[in-house]
Parts: sequence; C-alpha cells; structure tokens
Amino acid sequence: MTRAECAAWLRERDGFLILTHCRPDGDALGSAAALCRGLRSLGKQAFVLENPEANRRYAPLLLPYLGAAAGLIPISVDLADEGILQRNGDPYRGQIALSIDHHPSNSGYAAQRLLEAERASCGEIVYGLLRELGAALDRETATLLYIAVTTDTGCFRYKNTTPDTLRVGAALLELGAPIDLNRTLFMKKRPSRLKLESVMIESLDFFQNGEACIATVTLADLERCAVTEEDLEDIAAVSGQVEGVETSITVRQSGEKRWKISVRTGEYGNANAICAEFGGGGHGMASGCTLEGALEEVKARLKDAVCRHWHEAPV
Amino acid sequence: MTRAECAAWLRERDGFLILTHCRPDGDALGSAAALCRGLRSLGKQAFVLENPEANRRYAPLLLPYLGAAAGLIPISVDLADEGILQRNGDPYRGQIALSIDHHPSNSGYAAQRLLEAERASCGEIVYGLLRELGAALDRETATLLYIAVTTDTGCFRYKNTTPDTLRVGAALLELGAPIDLNRTLFMKKRPSRLKLESVMIESLDFFQNGEACIATVTLADLERCAVTEEDLEDIAAVSGQVEGVETSITVRQSGEKRWKISVRTGEYGNANAICAEFGGGGHGMASGCTLEGALEEVKARLKDAVCRHWHEAPV
Repeated sequence: MTRAECAAWLRERDGFLILTHCRPDGDALGSAAALCRGLRSLGKQAFVLENPEANRRYAPLLLPYLGAAAGLIPISVDLADEGILQRNGDPYRGQIALSIDHHPSNSGYAAQRLLEAERASCGEIVYGLLRELGAALDRETATLLYIAVTTDTGCFRYKNTTPDTLRVGAALLELGAPIDLNRTLFMKKRPSRLKLESVMIESLDFFQNGEACIATVTLADLERCAVTEEDLEDIAAVSGQVEGVETSITVRQSGEKRWKISVRTGEYGNANAICAEFGGGGHGMASGCTLEGALEEVKARLKDAVCRHWHEAPV
Repeated sequence: MTRAECAAWLRERDGFLILTHCRPDGDALGSAAALCRGLRSLGKQAFVLENPEANRRYAPLLLPYLGAAAGLIPISVDLADEGILQRNGDPYRGQIALSIDHHPSNSGYAAQRLLEAERASCGEIVYGLLRELGAALDRETATLLYIAVTTDTGCFRYKNTTPDTLRVGAALLELGAPIDLNRTLFMKKRPSRLKLESVMIESLDFFQNGEACIATVTLADLERCAVTEEDLEDIAAVSGQVEGVETSITVRQSGEKRWKISVRTGEYGNANAICAEFGGGGHGMASGCTLEGALEEVKARLKDAVCRHWHEAPV
C-alpha cells in the first residue's frame, strides 16, 4: 500500500485495535499511542491493546488510549513478524488487517501493509500518515511521535537517521514536542544502571589486537548493583562504545553455569554466523545466543568463534 | 548587521583571516574552516589562523585553511569576547573587523557583528551566511558545518536545539555530511576515558536526599587509568548524568592537598554562589573553584555550601 492508499483504507473503516511487539520500545508505544490519538481526532473509535511488558518509563503514555472490545479491526505498528507479537496478542494472530512498519524484514503477516523500509522509525511513518489523513497533530501527539522517532535513532545519532528524520523532528518540535524530553530519555541514567556500566567497563577483556572485547556481568554483580529489569535494557551497547572496538560481546550470567550472550559487530565480523555456531542468531551486526559452562571456558569459545568469522561481512 | 548586510560586507572586501577562541571546540573550528572554504569558493583569499590549542580530533580539519599574511582583515567566529581570543591572537586584539557569533553575551568588541543569539551554534549562522553569499556548499563544507552544529547541540540532544537546527542538519546531510561521524564524535569513548568514568561513578557520594552528589578523581586514579588531557574533557558531565541529581560536583586532585572543583546545578542551586565562597565563580549552572585540604574536609565544606545555597535560583 502507498501512504495515500493506507489513509483511504483507514478513512473507510472504523473501530481499530492497535497492537505492538513484545518488550515494546519508545517507537512501538509512541507510534501506537499517536496513531490512536490521531484516529480519534478524526472521530474514529480506536484503542491500543495494553502491553504488559511496557516499562515504567513508557507505560503512562498509553493510559489514555488503552481498551479493547469485540469486533475491532486489529492493526499493528512496528511489528516485523507475528512471532514477536505482544504476549497477550495471541487472539489476534493471523487476523491482523493492517501492518504499519519500517522493518525491511517485515514478513507480510498482515492482510494489508504500509511498509516504508527506508524510514528510521515507525514514528516517521505514522507522522506522514496522520498528515495524509488530515488528523489533528497537537502537542500531545507530537510528543508521542517525538519519543518514537528519537528512540529508534538514539536522538538522531544512529546512522539510520536521514534528512527526512531530522525534518520530521523539526516539525514535531514546532508542534510542541518538548526538547527537554531528551534530558530524561537520553542524558540521565539511574544510579544502579551507572554502577552496572562501571562493573562492565572494569570487566572488559580485549583480544584481536584490541579490536574485540568481552564485557561480563555476573549474578553477583547484578545483586551488588541492585539492578532492575529496566537497568538491563540495551546493556550490549556498553562494550560497543569503546573506541577502536569492532566486535563487542556481552556475557551475562543467567544461571550458575548459564550465560546469555550478545554479539555486536561493526565494519567486519558476522554476529549472526558467530551466534549460529551456538544455536542462536539474529542480524549480521547484532545477534544473541546462550552458552553453558564455566565463564573462562565460555569466553574462550566465543573468542575462537569471533576470530574465525573476523573477515566475514556482517550480513 | 543583518545576514544580508554581512554578506554584502564580505562581498565588497577580500583577504580575510579567521580567528577563534582559546580551547576551541568543534563549533569554533568547524565554523572557521567552513567559512574559509566558502569564501575561497567565491574567489576570495581567506585563511584560518592556526590555533595551538586545537585538539588531536579537530586539528586535521584546519590544515587546508591555515595561513596568515600582513594586511588581512581579521574576522572572528564563535568568539564572545576578546578576553578568550586564541592565545596567539594577541596582535589582532582591538582590530577585529567582523564578529560572527551566537553568544547572547557577545561583548561587541568588533567593528561589525553578525549576532544571531537564538542560534544553537555558530555553524548554523555560517551555513545561512554561505547560502546568502551563494558560496559553494560541497560535501567538505557540509561536513565542517555538521561538526560545528552537532558539537554545540550534543548531536541535537541539548535543549538549545531548535526546529531550525534540525533543518540545517537535514540540509547538511543532503549535501553529503556523513552520518557516520556521529559514531566517532558522540558514541565512542577511549578505553582510558571509560575507565576514568567508572572510577568516578564508583566514587559517587550522595547527599541532600540523593539530589546532590560528589564524584572524586585522585592523582592515583588518573595514573591507574592512564588518563590523557583529552580524557579529562567535560568530566563534570559524568556525575551530572545521574537520574534524580540536581547538583553535581566533581572534585579532581591537582596536588597532594589541592583540588579543582567543578559544580553543576539544575533546577535549583546556584553554582556561582557556591564557588564564590571559595574564591571561584562562573555561571549560575556551571562554576569552578580550587580548594586546599584533606579530601574529606574539602567534601564537607562543599556539601555545607551546597545545602546553604540549595534554594537559590541558578543565576
């Protein structure tokens, strides 16, 4: 569907239930709430299905839009595949009428889809769609979309940011999205998160001439730093920020001899191939797997795999 | 001067020497080099005066533009006052013909000035000026301006970012500025810097119900982390990122019983008043001073001062 066709499709219908993905981020929740609010401004009935995994930071955003009723038309935002549909979304599996998404990997599970794979965030697509629909874009909607757009681009830092992303950001600020949000979303960290990051930095184990490193988090570390689930969000980025490092690994203990592994690669190294050796997988530049054994043994196996896949492209 | 008047002024003249400030940042150096390159594209003779304090990250940017000759017209960028003119700029004191600046505090030292105090960066002004002049805006100039704009806005995160800032950013990306720069400038840190940050986080000493904290860096820490001068840039930001903290202090040892203090305040607390008690000063939200004594005693004196100035506005 083109954006105009999608707008026409929505105009012809009424009564929508918006679904997101498991472990929803700011793009999923901001896009869902903004779409719901925009549709309501056109006189439509619309709800967002409560997502039990929405974290403390984002959950309040959704409150005004939550609801469900029989006979609503299920539509999804930011959902690449039904396999990662929000946990309580099972009744809607195989029934999603429209998917609005920016993931190139969108599996085509929905009857209709508006897929703009060149967009950095789903929020950018929803912004364009709401304009196409002539929906009200008030301060509240602009704020929800600003959260969506900035979440997926690290506040315009990641390389998925395009000129259009920045122009959408400009429009949202003009519509009243508060720039102060950046302070909360991108510049402040909880003391427990900072302690955890310190422990991870202290644990860095470099190899491959300093171009690869492993950060370790043990159960004892988690306890000592009084870490919450929220503090663990995107911890793989901690070792990835080291200058000169192309491949960064995070090894996080999940049982006495059980470790959750996250592998990130840059210009070279294939994270997917590395993790596939241990029964895991993901993307070329970001993958995961689980390993069992003593820490030193687990690290040695990972180092060996990284070195063997060093010259592969991250695809 | 308006932007059009400034463009006309530059068009009527030839032979410019561009000056910056001491300890120049990406905005000063990027603006200076971009202005120089833009003027040259119009057939003008223009140079940037070498700045001995430009750090390893930025110094190479300037190389193609460095030079000096008798009879050039001195103009400044990003320079609020002659008191902070680059160290080797003394011969030009009192002779600066044009100041291009965005600081509201610009002291009017130059014969002419293009002051756009609502701009987040000097780079934004130079971008507008080069467009007004019809100068070439090639990939290289766009890159220099992108460095300028993103440096002063923390890559569009700080609250000085305006819709216009984002639109200038969009234009610069379209002109060829590489988005990958963000990785180097804003997302990567040297291992020694990361170690130093870990040490500072581990040292955090909270008071005032967790709304104030002190981070400590000793000479032993600096040695253990193999810290360079570059790693010490903006270390006051480390304790400032703690969620819930309004006043953050950094205490850095500079001699056996000598400490350099940096105080940052947020919604409340007056950094200037706190530091003035110890013979220092600065701005309402960011000030500095030097204290002598044993660490615990120095920290106690600071805590006492913070608490007494807690309810003052940061002016």
